[in-house]
Formats: sequence, C-alpha cells, structure tokens
Amino acid sequence: MSELASSPAKIIDGKVYAERLRAEVAREVAQLKADHGLQPGLAVVLVGDDPASQIYVRSKGEHSLAVGMHSVTHRLPGDTQQAELMRLIAELNADPLIHGILVQLPLPKHLDERAVLAAINPDKDVDGLHVVNAGRLASGMPALTPCTPLGCMILLRETVGDLSGLRAVVVGRSVLVGRPIAQLLLQADCTVTIAHSRTRDLPAVCREADILVAAVGRPRMIRGDWIKPGAAVIDVGINRVPFDDPAKAAAGRTKVVGDVNFKEASQVAGWITPVPGGVGLMTVAVLLQNTVTAARRLQGLA
Amino acid sequence: MSELASSPAKIIDGKVYAERLRAEVAREVAQLKADHGLQPGLAVVLVGDDPASQIYVRSKGEHSLAVGMHSVTHRLPGDTQQAELMRLIAELNADPLIHGILVQLPLPKHLDERAVLAAINPDKDVDGLHVVNAGRLASGMPALTPCTPLGCMILLRETVGDLSGLRAVVVGRSVLVGRPIAQLLLQADCTVTIAHSRTRDLPAVCREADILVAAVGRPRMIRGDWIKPGAAVIDVGINRVPFDDPAKAAAGRTKVVGDVNFKEASQVAGWITPVPGGVGLMTVAVLLQNTVTAARRLQGLA
Repeated sequence: MSELASSPAKIIDGKVYAERLRAEVAREVAQLKADHGLQPGLAVVLVGDDPASQIYVRSKGEHSLAVGMHSVTHRLPGDTQQAELMRLIAELNADPLIHGILVQLPLPKHLDERAVLAAINPDKDVDGLHVVNAGRLASGMPALTPCTPLGCMILLRETVGDLSGLRAVVVGRSVLVGRPIAQLLLQADCTVTIAHSRTRDLPAVCREADILVAAVGRPRMIRGDWIKPGAAVIDVGINRVPFDDPAKAAAGRTKVVGDVNFKEASQVAGWITPVPGGVGLMTVAVLLQNTVTAARRLQGLA
Repeated sequence: MSELASSPAKIIDGKVYAERLRAEVAREVAQLKADHGLQPGLAVVLVGDDPASQIYVRSKGEHSLAVGMHSVTHRLPGDTQQAELMRLIAELNADPLIHGILVQLPLPKHLDERAVLAAINPDKDVDGLHVVNAGRLASGMPALTPCTPLGCMILLRETVGDLSGLRAVVVGRSVLVGRPIAQLLLQADCTVTIAHSRTRDLPAVCREADILVAAVGRPRMIRGDWIKPGAAVIDVGINRVPFDDPAKAAAGRTKVVGDVNFKEASQVAGWITPVPGGVGLMTVAVLLQNTVTAARRLQGLA
C-alpha cells in the first residue's frame, strides 16, 4: 500500500460496486432458476407509514424484483397488534417460497421489536439481526450477517484485495455495525483492534491501521493526521450537519457527512469511501445477496 | 502500572482467587436458600470412562456439593446412543431442580457433540458453549459465558482493578477461549486487539498491551521482550513438554507449561499467572458461579 502514500486517495464509489453486486446477484438468481428451479424470495414487512421507511421498503421491493426474485411486501397499519405481527412472521417462516424476511425498523413504539426479531427463523433472517446469527458469526459458523458490515467487507475486498495480516482498527462497538465488522475482519485474517469512546489516544490507535473503519456517529471526528498514509478508510457514519456555507446554514439547510473528515483524510489515505455515495449504497445490494445465500442454504445448495 | 516497571511481577495465585470465589458462591447459595427457598442445582453428564474426564466430573460434583448446591452426576456407558443422550438432555432442560447442565467433553466419537450442545436450554448452559450464548455475549446481552474466559476476567479485576481504557491484546482467536475473552475485555471498556497466527510482527503487537492474554497452545511462545513493562499477563496455555533437565527428558518425563516464557516474562510484567497454578484453577469455581447466575435468572431474580 505504501506506493500510494503521497498520492491523494482513490475514491471508492459505492454506486459502482453496488451495481456490480446486483448484476452478480441477478446472474446467481437466473442460475438457481435454471439449474434447480429455485427462485429466491424476499418478504419485507412494514408497519405504519413512516415516510423514510416507506422509501426504503419500496426500494427493497423494486430491487429484488429487478434481479428476478420473488418479492412480497406486507404493509400493515400503524396500530397493528403484536400478536398479529407475530402471526405474520410465523406464516413467513413456514412459507416455502420465502427465503428472506426483513422487518423494517423502527417499529411503532407499542410493539416489542426484540420479540419480533427473535421470532424470525434465523435461516431466513437476511438482516442478520437474530441473536443466533450473531452467535454463528462470533463462532466462525456460516451466518447471515448484517448488510452494512458485509457491504464494508465487499468494498475492502474489491479495492485492497487480500486482507490477511493487515492491521484493522474499527472505531465504534455497536451491535449492528462495529462488532460484526470486527468479526468479519477477523475472519479475513486481519489483526483487529476495536476502539471506542473509552479508548485512550484514539488518534495513535487509528494511525496503526492499514484498514480503518469508522462507525461512531460523530460528524468528521476522524482527522487527516489520524490516518496512516496509504490506508483504506471505510466511513460508515451518516450524520446530518448544517451546511458549511453560513448563509445556507442560517437558512436551516443541512447535509449528510461521515465520521471521517473527508477533505483531510482523502489527502492521506490510499482508498476512502465518500459519504454519501460510499458504504450506504451497498446495503440493499447486500440484502439481495443475503437472500440468495439464505435460499441456497435452505435448499441445501450451500 | 508504571511503578511496577522495574520490579519482578506479582504472581497471580489461581488457588487463592478460586477459593475466594468458591466462598463467595457458597455465601450466595446460602442467601438464595434463606431468602427465596432456591437451591441452585447442577447436573453433570459423563458418557464413557475416560480417566481424565472422570476426575474432572468428580471434582465438579464434589465442589458443587461443598458450596451447598443440589448436584447430580449422570454417568452413562460409552456405547450410549445419541437418542438416549438427547432424551436425558430434554429431561434436564425440563427439571425445575436443575439450573445448570454440563456435558463433559469430549464425547465418544459416535456421538454428535454439536447436536448435543445445541439441545441444552441456553439458559441452563453453564459451560457457555451454546451458539445463543455466543450471540448474547457478542451482542452485549446477559449471557452465560465460558468458564475459562470468565475466570481470566475475575483474575484481572482482582489484580488490576478497573480495566477501562487499557489496551488489551488477546493472542489466539479460538471460539472457546480467545474470542469470548476479547468480548469480555471489550465489555470492560478495554481497547481490544485480537492477534493470531497471521498477525505480522506479533512481538510489537504484544508490546502494546497493558493486558496480555495468551491463548495459543504453543509452549513458551511469548518471550520477555514481547511484554510491556508492568503489564498484566494472563497465560491460558496448557502445554505438555519434556523436562528441561536432559536426564529427566530422556527418561520420558514431561511437565506442563504455558504459552508464556514465565522465567523471562515474570521479570518484566506487573502481574502474571503461572502455569500450572493460575487460570486453570479458576474453571470449576466459575462453573459454580455460572450455575448460581443461571438459577437466579431462571427464577427471575437476576
């Protein structure tokens, strides 16, 4: 990686890799149909009418159809009761045409989110949120893995290539992002360090990293001089901040930035994901891939 | 820790801390009986007549009685069939007097060990080997945790005290030891690095550690100059090697050593566990503590 030390970073364009992955998934779906008469099926469950959730759910439905999957979206009213939702999950668990079940979060406050997620058959849990999948991942067993962490790994493999022996530092230890990414980096034979809010001299710890993953949720926290020249920087943060331009900021306009100070970091890193336009774009494509993985395993084709 | 830099290490005597923990468990058992009429119960299952396993099982039975627990040992013949063993597990899962179930490993070759462990109710899995407990641990939920990793943590808390912000390096990434220890150190707010056979410049990585945990299974691999002066060194290795004395070695005599070169390391470290006499002595005491934990939670007293 050292040859890149003095050049500005290569930008990792999430759109390119997401499109590539969706095309790959479409080929796999076609192959599974041709060879085994198997059409992977994804069920998405939305409760209530949160506008952002509606957009996500529509996107998931459209993309799954576009790659040739069987796709069902269940839209339930906001006052749906727990028992009713649990009954739907049980039906989807039993449905042989459905290989992936995704419950769009957050659920309305009156519903027990944890109980709903725990009711999903772990082998159909394409969001990778079931405790059994966390346990399989932690035990090095075949698991369904949360989409954002897996998306980060795909970007790293497409850019850095073989990760074995590299030092990886994950900043942030959330159950949904930081911890699973650390597990995946360990599986890829990195020497993995998990840093967090209690870490002493975080800049020095970050400078050890050949691969630096930022998943903290603090806008532009990671500065250019925290980065080892030539390192691959994966920015998982999505933070809404006022515009830099004071006039726009005064008008209340905001924009989205990552956990990394992109302007500084891109002068030092070897590779870097922008925000927006990086990791975030991978999520739905990875969800489709997880659905194919689930279908293969449920059919005994893994 | 720096004040210890130039003195020889304090030896962490596993016997002392194991006795202390057993006394504490005995107090808790007495309290649970007095306050809630609850007597924690441990069932140990042994299949076959492996001599080492028989010693371990007897020890577990005796120690659980000694702290006032209900204790049952099931000794099954070596040709026990899978279905029969599964039936016993189901009975123990349903038995309200039993809060902890331990199947002594290894099982005879004809039995499916993984299926047996998966059949244990995770809430009674006092060995912490069920995938659901690995998932709970990885997700920061209340889990039953494998005994050796938990024993290491108890020794660290009894010696170092507050671990928050310290750099911990775990050498070894086994599912039974290295990975759960890393999870526990993270829970204790350490900055945690997991190193392994693919790690580059392992000595330098080890020298970063305020807390160094060796769980590799390679005799005396970790040398004195790999250790940061004043660090706490926890040696989980149990390796049988020929005696250093050539005459004894020639006579085929062996002894047990750890993964750390104790003679060298004890001149540099602040604290160090010997092998034998360190971590290994904690295991049964932690098993008893796990049984109390399981009993409290099953009774809704957590």
